[in-house]
Amino acid sequence: MKLHEAPSPNARRVQVFLKEKGIEAPPSVAVDIRGGENLTEAYRALNPFGRVPVLEFDDGTCLAESVAICRYFEGLHPEPCLFGAEPLEQALIEMWNRRAEINFMMPAAQAFRNLTGFFKDREKVSAEWGAISLEIAADGLTRFDQALTDRQFLAGDGFSIADITFGIALGFAQQIKLELPFDLPNIARYLAQIGARPSFQEG
Amino acid sequence: MKLHEAPSPNARRVQVFLKEKGIEAPPSVAVDIRGGENLTEAYRALNPFGRVPVLEFDDGTCLAESVAICRYFEGLHPEPCLFGAEPLEQALIEMWNRRAEINFMMPAAQAFRNLTGFFKDREKVSAEWGAISLEIAADGLTRFDQALTDRQFLAGDGFSIADITFGIALGFAQQIKLELPFDLPNIARYLAQIGARPSFQEG
Repeated sequence: MKLHEAPSPNARRVQVFLKEKGIEAPPSVAVDIRGGENLTEAYRALNPFGRVPVLEFDDGTCLAESVAICRYFEGLHPEPCLFGAEPLEQALIEMWNRRAEINFMMPAAQAFRNLTGFFKDREKVSAEWGAISLEIAADGLTRFDQALTDRQFLAGDGFSIADITFGIALGFAQQIKLELPFDLPNIARYLAQIGARPSFQEG
Repeated sequence: MKLHEAPSPNARRVQVFLKEKGIEAPPSVAVDIRGGENLTEAYRALNPFGRVPVLEFDDGTCLAESVAICRYFEGLHPEPCLFGAEPLEQALIEMWNRRAEINFMMPAAQAFRNLTGFFKDREKVSAEWGAISLEIAADGLTRFDQALTDRQFLAGDGFSIADITFGIALGFAQQIKLELPFDLPNIARYLAQIGARPSFQEG
């Protein structure tokens, strides 16, 4: 088994998840995204959609999508439980994980790619859409701030995959200096709290 | 328990899922999206992000995000299994469901909203991004067509939540007349096959 990855928020979701679970990470294969290795025919044989990470099994089966990889490891190692135990708890965690993706992680990524043109050698970009995406991400942040008023973590009192998604997306958005209201009171508290977890330390 | 919904691809995912499971749908509450009811304070008390569907429990708990709602019912009624049984099968189905969302359903929705300005009374749009999104959705379709060469359903030999997502997204993209290559051989075959399922019939 090996893990094809690159420095990216999605690859980091799997790395943090494995640390939280206490699972040793599979041997890593570096993918040179800057050089376009993920768009080569060889890489698309692993993942036709050209994204990282990909978990490649010894029989050649390839599992892509960071949350799918995390869910696989959750099935093998249920504790500590990061996707929820009972049906309603599982569903509420899935809801918050998706909200973090749809209402913050994805618009922040579209703002980054379209405003900076970071991948403009390989994809068309629209600065107009970048600006709109930044507003969507900012609106999302204010709603997450409200939701975090009465709870420690996104899906309630327990740390979950939703916090891995949201914590990493927030950290990435700060790192690339998106102009977003990171100083909203509950967002600031949440960022400090999540960022202090051992699993979130780099290296 | 009641289900707040509106004619939309995401609400339809839950409707089709319940039919596939043979579960009677909870009483439906119509949300007037065209009239902006989903953006009112009253509706945002159910879902701060203003989206449909929302499953409201009798104790006031609200579960949003169509896939989270489906997963809740899967937990209560495991058969027929639509999210997979063993960890690797579950993960591969999650991968294909996410691929269908990220590489087709979402860019098709962004193409629709930005090209037609369907919601331009309430959101900023970029025709430039609409055109780019249409190209992204078209590129996605060619890759799904390739993937469907050697299998009947998206995640393998069994029908799954991934086919509900992809089948509904394809049907919606056809209905709104997005200019996409629906006549790719495996896509055309898949569309006919999925569209003929009793669960996909309207009403």
